[in-house]
Amino acid sequence: MAKRVALLTSGGDAPGMNAAIRAIVRAGIINDMEMYAVFEGFKGLVEDLISPVDRSFVSEILMRGGTILKTARLKSFVEESIQDIAVANLKRHNIDTLVIIGGDGSYRGGACLAAKGINVIGIPGTIDNDVIGTDTTIGFDTALNTITEAVDKLRDTSSSHLRCTIIEVMGNHCGDLALYGGTACGVDLILSPEYRPSDAEVVEKLKTIHHSRSRHALVLVSEKLIPDLQSFGQMIREKTGFDTTVEILGRIQRGGSPTAMDRVLAARFGVHAIEIIAQGKRNRVVGTVNGKIVDYDINAAERRSTVKTEELIGVISTLK
Amino acid sequence: MAKRVALLTSGGDAPGMNAAIRAIVRAGIINDMEMYAVFEGFKGLVEDLISPVDRSFVSEILMRGGTILKTARLKSFVEESIQDIAVANLKRHNIDTLVIIGGDGSYRGGACLAAKGINVIGIPGTIDNDVIGTDTTIGFDTALNTITEAVDKLRDTSSSHLRCTIIEVMGNHCGDLALYGGTACGVDLILSPEYRPSDAEVVEKLKTIHHSRSRHALVLVSEKLIPDLQSFGQMIREKTGFDTTVEILGRIQRGGSPTAMDRVLAARFGVHAIEIIAQGKRNRVVGTVNGKIVDYDINAAERRSTVKTEELIGVISTLK
Amino acid sequence: MAKRVALLTSGGDAPGMNAAIRAIVRAGIINDMEMYAVFEGFKGLVEDLISPVDRSFVSEILMRGGTILKTARLKSFVEESIQDIAVANLKRHNIDTLVIIGGDGSYRGGACLAAKGINVIGIPGTIDNDVIGTDTTIGFDTALNTITEAVDKLRDTSSSHLRCTIIEVMGNHCGDLALYGGTACGVDLILSPEYRPSDAEVVEKLKTIHHSRSRHALVLVSEKLIPDLQSFGQMIREKTGFDTTVEILGRIQRGGSPTAMDRVLAARFGVHAIEIIAQGKRNRVVGTVNGKIVDYDINAAERRSTVKTEELIGVISTLK
Amino acid sequence: MAKRVALLTSGGDAPGMNAAIRAIVRAGIINDMEMYAVFEGFKGLVEDLISPVDRSFVSEILMRGGTILKTARLKSFVEESIQDIAVANLKRHNIDTLVIIGGDGSYRGGACLAAKGINVIGIPGTIDNDVIGTDTTIGFDTALNTITEAVDKLRDTSSSHLRCTIIEVMGNHCGDLALYGGTACGVDLILSPEYRPSDAEVVEKLKTIHHSRSRHALVLVSEKLIPDLQSFGQMIREKTGFDTTVEILGRIQRGGSPTAMDRVLAARFGVHAIEIIAQGKRNRVVGTVNGKIVDYDINAAERRSTVKTEELIGVISTLK
Repeated sequence: MAKRVALLTSGGDAPGMNAAIRAIVRAGIINDMEMYAVFEGFKGLVEDLISPVDRSFVSEILMRGGTILKTARLKSFVEESIQDIAVANLKRHNIDTLVIIGGDGSYRGGACLAAKGINVIGIPGTIDNDVIGTDTTIGFDTALNTITEAVDKLRDTSSSHLRCTIIEVMGNHCGDLALYGGTACGVDLILSPEYRPSDAEVVEKLKTIHHSRSRHALVLVSEKLIPDLQSFGQMIREKTGFDTTVEILGRIQRGGSPTAMDRVLAARFGVHAIEIIAQGKRNRVVGTVNGKIVDYDINAAERRSTVKTEELIGVISTLK
Repeated sequence: MAKRVALLTSGGDAPGMNAAIRAIVRAGIINDMEMYAVFEGFKGLVEDLISPVDRSFVSEILMRGGTILKTARLKSFVEESIQDIAVANLKRHNIDTLVIIGGDGSYRGGACLAAKGINVIGIPGTIDNDVIGTDTTIGFDTALNTITEAVDKLRDTSSSHLRCTIIEVMGNHCGDLALYGGTACGVDLILSPEYRPSDAEVVEKLKTIHHSRSRHALVLVSEKLIPDLQSFGQMIREKTGFDTTVEILGRIQRGGSPTAMDRVLAARFGVHAIEIIAQGKRNRVVGTVNGKIVDYDINAAERRSTVKTEELIGVISTLK
Repeated sequence: MAKRVALLTSGGDAPGMNAAIRAIVRAGIINDMEMYAVFEGFKGLVEDLISPVDRSFVSEILMRGGTILKTARLKSFVEESIQDIAVANLKRHNIDTLVIIGGDGSYRGGACLAAKGINVIGIPGTIDNDVIGTDTTIGFDTALNTITEAVDKLRDTSSSHLRCTIIEVMGNHCGDLALYGGTACGVDLILSPEYRPSDAEVVEKLKTIHHSRSRHALVLVSEKLIPDLQSFGQMIREKTGFDTTVEILGRIQRGGSPTAMDRVLAARFGVHAIEIIAQGKRNRVVGTVNGKIVDYDINAAERRSTVKTEELIGVISTLK
Repeated sequence: MAKRVALLTSGGDAPGMNAAIRAIVRAGIINDMEMYAVFEGFKGLVEDLISPVDRSFVSEILMRGGTILKTARLKSFVEESIQDIAVANLKRHNIDTLVIIGGDGSYRGGACLAAKGINVIGIPGTIDNDVIGTDTTIGFDTALNTITEAVDKLRDTSSSHLRCTIIEVMGNHCGDLALYGGTACGVDLILSPEYRPSDAEVVEKLKTIHHSRSRHALVLVSEKLIPDLQSFGQMIREKTGFDTTVEILGRIQRGGSPTAMDRVLAARFGVHAIEIIAQGKRNRVVGTVNGKIVDYDINAAERRSTVKTEELIGVISTLK
């Protein structure tokens, strides 16, 4: 009997998830697998939102943001009784392998299913680039370009009004969006978990800019780093004299047609996932390390953490 | 002696202001006028930030957002003694005509100078499209497309998560950005000063969508219409059961390279402004009415209000 | 019995056609009409590619370029026997009204059907803006912005290499794309059917630029105006000394997500088409004149030609 | 005396060159070097278009396409007498180090200067990604996204007309733009130097598509691979029955604001170039291998060729 493979997307959506879905379904069919879609993430596993899909299911989705499989959070999935329902649903469909596109949170859910005998393959899909064991995640490059375009727009108005504009970007405790985005936009200051000048340094630097020729400043801040960004802006305003505003980029960072590199990454991850399934590998997560495709055991403890931003922080320090 | 014409940008910046500056300076020079730039709006008039400019001053600015002349607000400009300083500065440079690119607030400042003998010509530049006597303002079309792209991105994530996403757009008491933007994006609900379904209607409609096939909703809201948008979102969440989030698009709406039509409009306004100066007209504001260039007396009371959105509200009512 | 209305797209595709399809289908259903899609234009009428559609048929198409109904050219449609087949197919489905989204060529086909008793309503959809009786067509604004973005990119490389770059844009004997696009991009020369400097003037102007400070030039040319653009480029190269290249923008001008204004225009046209059908009007084409929605008899002879570009040519002459 | 470092851009321009110029000048000044700009590439070396620059020279250029230093080709630079003039000019300014942003052709010119005692540092800047010894070049990612956006637009019109669209992309004998671009866009066929299905295979595949459900096809072809693309299109038309058109994307691939990753790469390359100059290294070219910054001797024979596309060709073969 042909191998039956289901796939779902989980956690926050990321541009390129659809490109990955397309690659997995097409590569699976070419490898004589029977492909199944699970809708609404783990919730759909539990509620049996599971259907067989064919090649036409994934046509014209490559360039679209979001995920046609939908995604949802299901808090109760930590309970074993709920996991058992999911496993039973998969078994009823004779599905033995489940591909999960998501982040570390989704992998934890996947590891629970793996412990119950399902073969779980993880593909890193999140704009935050915060998955252990991979240098890049699907959606990161697109979100970075969305941030870059937004900051380029904000620079127009910030420089026209001679303002200090503080901009919050996403990242979920990982500073990559701020560090790469800030470098790409040549902002004056970046504040991220990995690179956090003190408030005194921030004030000092902004004071200098306020009295310089350019007289406007852009500051990029990782979400969840500064508890109250409005108060932080107020502090800047008072201590530097700068007309200061705060912008929260928000969920536009999640959407949009994926960039070329996110689409290529999704194709590479999707094809690799099907290849390792065909080879009989079990419970692996795919990723890239130094540009090459790799796969590791799904359990975080056995994944190698990659060092990504050290050189970039040096670049930022030099150009500041 | 050649006529000396100064120009400034005032109020919120808008994409296309630079294209207008370019058109005014080039058309002025072609008409043998001597052109002067005033930096930082009315503040620059008072602080004498006034310099002669040539054709090269405006090269390579056409496609850039913001304003190379900078803009600022100067509260004290309501005081006559301050206005007298501005007039004295202009007279010292032998400048008799001042072109102001801005909105109604800037025109009021201009009218004060007109009352003191300066020939003031106004060009409507604001993303809000809220200037009396013109159907269109420079920057509106660009902001509309920025909103459209942002909402298209938000739709990706809203539909992937089966959410209700409430999106605040600018407009400054004028609903055009919400009405046109909402029509362009096919959102489920628009709330603007001109078109405001009751909270009960909003809840009813969102309940219906929540239980429909699509299960996600986009709501576009004009700024300053709903005092506390987070509470409004909380109310929606409670009464409809929808997972509801609030997004404030913010100042990205002000920036970016102007659209084709904003650049063309800026060229038309700039050339017309110089033409009426050459003809000896005094204290006029230019605009478009039914697609044609017009000019009116700068005093608001003498400008005709245009009816812009009636048909569009009919379209919105039909397609809702 | 409910009124049955079919719709098709014909001629070259244009961004916003899908938005118009959506508006027509939704407005028709709201007005208790039964809506039918005809696929592949007039060819689909003849081959009976006609199906009833519901509201879900048009979901998620608003922002997509192209036309989900497909389009095709059918040369044999000039033959009456072929037209009779189309009419017979429509009558077999009890369809009495046909909405055609296309240009003047498509309207001529429509007028043949009107002569045989079908109620034909035309909506102007073409990037070329060359339809008699309307100031604007669906797709024009998007194509204009596509041209603007492409020319902005070409400027980067043209100025870096100190070149003269000749760029051909579409328009089908109508110069609007060249005239508006050229104004939007501030190109050095525009050559269109309505505004055609002599070769001697072109050479003179380019010689001046070649020896000026900027030393690079952009020339925008309407398609079908200069028979052999490569030879024209060669002539420029020889007579001016400019390193000269020729770029044909091509069909990228037809694609892409429609701009805000094209989507709004499509909504307005679609709703108006259904309104006049509901009112019992017959054989009309809709359009805008001076910003307002109008409708005229479908026969070209009875449509009023609008004067669109006179003022713009004045602006171009001033800023050149 | 402070070290004097000049920089120039050479060969075809690429988006991100300005970001690299900015990084080099800023990092150089921070390292107490005196920075000089050479305008118009090697031509400027010979004609002494060499000026000292400060930090303000590179402000507001980060996001701009093209190169503010201009670029030019100088055929006579192969002659030693011409090279001697360049060396003499540099020595007259007491400049001992020259940073060249360009491709292999530019490096060859640089190696000639190195042989005459100038310390030459190369940074790979070209959209073609065809430089030996680096996985990525500045401009490649941007060109890839420009191609992706253009092909997405062409898909709209190709699918609306049920056509086969053949699209030529740049690459200069390197297939990376075609291979990555084709994967990103999910085209039906890619023809590149590294991956070239036979004409018979191309015809067979297109025939299958012509009779399949989708009925439209996109074919991406590397420049310089097929001598006469129009004839190739004609052959496809005749042998497959497909309505076939040919599109040459052309120089729009060179322009545009650089993507986030090209800007980051430019910053990293620029900082690294200054670092190795400060360390006293001589005649090196920088690059990335497996994501890490490296530097090699400027002579091509001593640079290691990187294998970039093997895995990607496997992905393409699987998904075809």
